[in-house]
Amino acid sequence: MRWSYVIRTIGALIFCIGLTMLLPLGFALHYKDGSELPLFKALLIVLATGLGLFVAFRHSRVPSMTHREGMAIVALAWLTAGLAGALPFYLGSTTEYFVDGFFESVSGFSTTGASIFTDIEKVPRGILMWRSLTHWLGGMGIIVFSLAILPFLGVGGMQLYKAEVPSPVPDKLRPRIHDTAMVLWKVYLFFTLVETVMLMFGGMDLFESLCHTFGTMATGGFSTKNASIAHYGSAYIDAVITVFMLIAGINFSLHYFALMGRPRVMWKDPEFRFFMMLVSIFTAVSTLSVFRETYASFWESLRHAAFQVASIITTTGYATADYEKWPPLPQSILFFCMFLGASAGSTGGGMKCMRIMLLLKHGYLELLRLIHPWAVLQVKLAGRPVPDEVIKGIWGFFILYLALFILSSFLLAAMGQDILTAFSAVAASIGNIGPGFGNVGPTENYAHLPHSAKWLLALCMLLGRLEIYTVIVLFVPEFWRK
Amino acid sequence: MRWSYVIRTIGALIFCIGLTMLLPLGFALHYKDGSELPLFKALLIVLATGLGLFVAFRHSRVPSMTHREGMAIVALAWLTAGLAGALPFYLGSTTEYFVDGFFESVSGFSTTGASIFTDIEKVPRGILMWRSLTHWLGGMGIIVFSLAILPFLGVGGMQLYKAEVPSPVPDKLRPRIHDTAMVLWKVYLFFTLVETVMLMFGGMDLFESLCHTFGTMATGGFSTKNASIAHYGSAYIDAVITVFMLIAGINFSLHYFALMGRPRVMWKDPEFRFFMMLVSIFTAVSTLSVFRETYASFWESLRHAAFQVASIITTTGYATADYEKWPPLPQSILFFCMFLGASAGSTGGGMKCMRIMLLLKHGYLELLRLIHPWAVLQVKLAGRPVPDEVIKGIWGFFILYLALFILSSFLLAAMGQDILTAFSAVAASIGNIGPGFGNVGPTENYAHLPHSAKWLLALCMLLGRLEIYTVIVLFVPEFWRK
Repeated sequence: MRWSYVIRTIGALIFCIGLTMLLPLGFALHYKDGSELPLFKALLIVLATGLGLFVAFRHSRVPSMTHREGMAIVALAWLTAGLAGALPFYLGSTTEYFVDGFFESVSGFSTTGASIFTDIEKVPRGILMWRSLTHWLGGMGIIVFSLAILPFLGVGGMQLYKAEVPSPVPDKLRPRIHDTAMVLWKVYLFFTLVETVMLMFGGMDLFESLCHTFGTMATGGFSTKNASIAHYGSAYIDAVITVFMLIAGINFSLHYFALMGRPRVMWKDPEFRFFMMLVSIFTAVSTLSVFRETYASFWESLRHAAFQVASIITTTGYATADYEKWPPLPQSILFFCMFLGASAGSTGGGMKCMRIMLLLKHGYLELLRLIHPWAVLQVKLAGRPVPDEVIKGIWGFFILYLALFILSSFLLAAMGQDILTAFSAVAASIGNIGPGFGNVGPTENYAHLPHSAKWLLALCMLLGRLEIYTVIVLFVPEFWRK
Repeated sequence: MRWSYVIRTIGALIFCIGLTMLLPLGFALHYKDGSELPLFKALLIVLATGLGLFVAFRHSRVPSMTHREGMAIVALAWLTAGLAGALPFYLGSTTEYFVDGFFESVSGFSTTGASIFTDIEKVPRGILMWRSLTHWLGGMGIIVFSLAILPFLGVGGMQLYKAEVPSPVPDKLRPRIHDTAMVLWKVYLFFTLVETVMLMFGGMDLFESLCHTFGTMATGGFSTKNASIAHYGSAYIDAVITVFMLIAGINFSLHYFALMGRPRVMWKDPEFRFFMMLVSIFTAVSTLSVFRETYASFWESLRHAAFQVASIITTTGYATADYEKWPPLPQSILFFCMFLGASAGSTGGGMKCMRIMLLLKHGYLELLRLIHPWAVLQVKLAGRPVPDEVIKGIWGFFILYLALFILSSFLLAAMGQDILTAFSAVAASIGNIGPGFGNVGPTENYAHLPHSAKWLLALCMLLGRLEIYTVIVLFVPEFWRK
């Protein structure tokens, strides 16, 4: 591990994060909402720290990066982003304790959207803009992480995506990361612009439109209103956000092909089909469940069912309805969606549809194996056999995900949270969703949790966001041996 | 599929079940409790049906049984046992609808212990004895199924146990089943006798002692008292049942070795160690959680914590305390134990410790593979490598278990059950435990559920008991092709 190189990279990253604080600072100066000074202080501290680290280690450029360095950089990147992002909250006294600012910042960068603010509308707009911007930056990071870094690290079966990126150069990550990032960021930027404009057509001003677009495209879920999207009570806004949440839940390289005039690539992708099939079925079942039971009109039922299903399955977490008041069936569906998650290569969290799809295929094959004990059976995807190592990687990821879920739920329960709150808060954090059930339901927030619980859940968000493996591996002694 | 042979075997089985009804009939005649006539009628119907089927197909003896015939016989055996066992309840008018009798009978034979009786103490003793006897018979069946049949069918990774049984003859199940069954039944009978005597020392009469022993050794959970074991309020009885629940949760072939003077075989068994480690940790944590919080004395805390942990992890379901009033941590532990289950080759249900242990080992190996991408790593058990097919079989079982759990929970939620009740009732049924949380908690029963829910949960019990695969495979069209 060449630490000087790792620190230099993190320094550059922190510096860039500092630069992005200019956007919220601009809004703060425009609105004169009292957040100018804390944002300016935070900007200076972050820029200076980043620049200091970068300059101190500026000579440690290396021609190639190893697996280990890649993993250390990724884990440190999200951790330091979380720390740097906490400064505006803490310095602006919008959060009393540092842990609250850290929770909010990690929730932002991990695109979770769980909040400790009890009255969001009282928070200065400059701070709110920064809060939503952390989502957007986190989403940007995760696209690169999942489509350029993960396939090469071979984490959780994601080596499956190696085939899609030409010329795999196992130990030379840098050039590929750069090229892939540039292409995908353009797609991300394009959708961000389109959604911002469309929301402004719906009556939002630039500030609110930008904040909600950041929250949508990153599948984050921070809003500027206490009632989340329900505040606007507009079917148009609900529809726009539903569609863009689903867009953000689809593999961005498929969007790239579609925008380049090859929509067939998207349509033929097995994960895209599986994802859209699940969304359709869950929306249909939820609509029929809430129709007459909760809402008098069919269109009202469809509007809220589609929004809530899209919001939870893409792990965004926006709300237009209190789903805890819905009948048990759509509630169970939403609980299950918390684990499912969106597509690989999207900004969404959770286990990802691709993995669940392959595991189900494997389960069915084992059933056939019972009937034909000596047949050679292999999981296939779009007609091509899936290598055994990919399936093994996915299973490994699956059991680690569940083990982390169970252990963290135990810890949260030990901190006094009831069983439904504990299970769903952890599921909503590892899955980077935001709202859960019980005391962390869609009309509640995370403010009332003890400090220990906030630290724990912030860690769960980071672990979930970085596909667990990438963080846990740092705690294996083997990792540090030469 | 030679159906005549399958039906002949089922006929013989039904006849044997009919014979066992003599025991409850004897108690009914002794107590003159009004259940003599319904038991006698049921006995005649079952004997006649069994004899009729057997005689009609008496010439269809076959030298060997195929995989498919084995699976069909196993699934049909539990289904017809459930139907036959429902007769005494239904004919005796202790249950108003047939579905209630069927639910109770399937709950018995699958060693689940979920009950639809709201006031058990009003049910005639002859019927109660039959109810507990179904547990014992089901437990007897499951020992043979899991140690003699499953390894040869290769279901859910259970081919692992092939090595323990000498001379594997893949397509000739019969001789091995017979030999293995005889040895293990002696062990089962031995523990049954010892526990019965020990419970009588604690003040129970023969009737109650037998009923509770049947419920313990089969990890079933039917009691003759509304308050379950809490009724006796005796530390001695609690201790005896705790120990025998744990005994019933251990692989019976290990007991055989221990009783033959080779206890080291048991002590060195990795699954035994893992199981005892989990029991110890969960008991210790639960004891510390309820101490002062729920019970004033440490010994009281230990007594109830140990009992409830042993009861749920072995999937028995007896209760000495209302764990829903405990703090959240031990509640979460018990919820998790519902999935975990006891050891393979015991009478317990759930996923089984062996499987969880191997999955965790696999997860850790995948972590190491990230660090050494080109190393050859294999899961080992007691120093010996575990074949890939075993791991694949376990993963297949795992995903089917979860898929069944999720789908059934959705269905139960669609029938109007709240999310905690739906999830825990299904978990308690597939895991063959009995009590769950919410409206099916330890102080509740299943009487209030709609008929559709009772049919669904009875099916879940059968699926869980027969390791899912064995039943689901019958619904795969491939199974029926020549």
